[in-house]
Amino acid sequence: MTLKNTCLAVLSLALLSVHANAKEAPVLNTNITEADIEAAQKAWGAALIQISTDYKEGGFDKAKATADAVLDAAYGYNLGPVLFKPTLTVAPQTFRPTKEGALAYFVGGNKDFPDDSGFALKGWTKYEFENSAIHITADLALTLGKVRITNDKGEVTEVDKTWGFKKDDAGNLRIVLHHSSLPYKK
Amino acid sequence: MTLKNTCLAVLSLALLSVHANAKEAPVLNTNITEADIEAAQKAWGAALIQISTDYKEGGFDKAKATADAVLDAAYGYNLGPVLFKPTLTVAPQTFRPTKEGALAYFVGGNKDFPDDSGFALKGWTKYEFENSAIHITADLALTLGKVRITNDKGEVTEVDKTWGFKKDDAGNLRIVLHHSSLPYKK
Amino acid sequence: MTLKNTCLAVLSLALLSVHANAKEAPVLNTNITEADIEAAQKAWGAALIQISTDYKEGGFDKAKATADAVLDAAYGYNLGPVLFKPTLTVAPQTFRPTKEGALAYFVGGNKDFPDDSGFALKGWTKYEFENSAIHITADLALTLGKVRITNDKGEVTEVDKTWGFKKDDAGNLRIVLHHSSLPYKK
Amino acid sequence: MTLKNTCLAVLSLALLSVHANAKEAPVLNTNITEADIEAAQKAWGAALIQISTDYKEGGFDKAKATADAVLDAAYGYNLGPVLFKPTLTVAPQTFRPTKEGALAYFVGGNKDFPDDSGFALKGWTKYEFENSAIHITADLALTLGKVRITNDKGEVTEVDKTWGFKKDDAGNLRIVLHHSSLPYKK
Repeated sequence: MTLKNTCLAVLSLALLSVHANAKEAPVLNTNITEADIEAAQKAWGAALIQISTDYKEGGFDKAKATADAVLDAAYGYNLGPVLFKPTLTVAPQTFRPTKEGALAYFVGGNKDFPDDSGFALKGWTKYEFENSAIHITADLALTLGKVRITNDKGEVTEVDKTWGFKKDDAGNLRIVLHHSSLPYKK
Repeated sequence: MTLKNTCLAVLSLALLSVHANAKEAPVLNTNITEADIEAAQKAWGAALIQISTDYKEGGFDKAKATADAVLDAAYGYNLGPVLFKPTLTVAPQTFRPTKEGALAYFVGGNKDFPDDSGFALKGWTKYEFENSAIHITADLALTLGKVRITNDKGEVTEVDKTWGFKKDDAGNLRIVLHHSSLPYKK
Repeated sequence: MTLKNTCLAVLSLALLSVHANAKEAPVLNTNITEADIEAAQKAWGAALIQISTDYKEGGFDKAKATADAVLDAAYGYNLGPVLFKPTLTVAPQTFRPTKEGALAYFVGGNKDFPDDSGFALKGWTKYEFENSAIHITADLALTLGKVRITNDKGEVTEVDKTWGFKKDDAGNLRIVLHHSSLPYKK
Repeated sequence: MTLKNTCLAVLSLALLSVHANAKEAPVLNTNITEADIEAAQKAWGAALIQISTDYKEGGFDKAKATADAVLDAAYGYNLGPVLFKPTLTVAPQTFRPTKEGALAYFVGGNKDFPDDSGFALKGWTKYEFENSAIHITADLALTLGKVRITNDKGEVTEVDKTWGFKKDDAGNLRIVLHHSSLPYKK
């Protein structure tokens, strides 16, 4: 019997004399779960629709307040720079590592970001996502897939979207990476 | 409505228009699980009993070969130094950061570790553990609790034991921390 | 003095009686570093240029062998699905979670991926990257930025690129996320 | 040339055409560092001495307030159960997963923990630690080594001590594991 086989035998031994109660002990687990991810992906779409709805019903100020609250609650700008490449930004402001830049993208109205017209104000009413694959390491989850959003005229926009979600100490998921792009056209 | 409340409302919105299929996407998750931990704790006890059994049935060489295989399979000496404080070691060899020192502790017979008499050779026949609490971060799990082992004369030894288990790329748990101590006597 | 102030005082106490030698102890640190990231980003560009060079000098088979080796060494397909959205792919094969799909994108010549013409064969001679921001969690690093590649006619292609690099047990970085997109045109 | 050699050649290629500026991008890195660990180990000893000093100078209430503040600032009871096996505790209260149990150990005076006489009140004036090895995974660091503390009579107590330090979102290290034991006596 080789050492390797001895070892495998040891590890597969029937453990008649072992009594376990690991499950009864309290567990602190700071890792992110698949359920966490699905909830965060749903919440992102719901927030987008909410901003559009608030804009229609309450105007710019209400929409901006909601967008601001969403950024505070669901993005990781409180932790540091966020890796954010929105769908429609152009150089030299392609990336939005600060909250101010993200807010400008979502609702516009910021003269320091003159190309931003307010992506979240465009009458979005429906949202769905389809993940290609998911990667989980520690309290960080990465997702890549298609996101389709529909406006109030029934027009559908499809984007290729990567998210990185980080679970903070309070158990909330925060977006620390968001790369969105229109599909390549041949 | 405050910004905070707006935000909470957004995140708890009923999501009638969101269609999710996150669960269908393939997931790579490198984190450790509670099931992993329980299996590893059971395997440690089974390995200890196996070494004792092999010593009785096959003598020192067989027991040493088994112990060597267990250290290769279940400890993290291949990754780097292991934080190992066995129950019965004394200064200046209290800690056993190398595999050689760990093997000496389990089976003795190494003149460089003259105080080691072979902890795993002492006729162990039964093992049970009782966790006080478990901590999980990334691919690392920490457990603290009581371990009780019984020898072939029916004598029970109880120790306070901390383990740190690391899940490697292949999905195997490896002990990277092992602090064992006899209970304090007033 | 409040409890908080007491606490701060405790933690900032001048520690004249403390003797530390933490630095002398061996350390096993599995986390990824900024130096790791920079090396991996450079290696990606070098590999792209190498595939182009091998194609010119040795033809398709040589280029394919190099691309295959690069995927084995620098991507995480051995770990599980990779979140890969190449620059020029189209639905329904936008994403390439398997190595086969990635290889088809880089060198073409696979009838199961009829839209792939071999991105890495297009005479690339120069590469540079400019990070917008970097996020590091555990053994995983995320980068977002501009990548510019130049072909043998001097034409420059600029893409917005996200990478996720995972450090494996052997200390090698592997790409587990790669989202590349052409800049949005207004 | 084998595929493996091709691959190694690719990755070791001289990268004359690559221009990197990775270091200029802002970086969010949530991992723990060796400097973090050394500071936390020093702070623990300083806190112990401070509690003893406060007891001598300000009596039980002052010492208890300091101990309470230390537990809030330097332990992870706010995150969940802590894996704490103090040096001198006995069954059935060997482990102290809650803050109340930890405070009772440090200062005594809690009728629910009748065996606790106040470990931190025993006139400690000097502290030093000597690490055997350190393990770092993500935002968690494990240390194992000797800790020696000296009281106001010049008597030295040596313990074998494992710590697990977790870096929280705010960048503070918190003890989530603490196993302390008197050296084994033959």
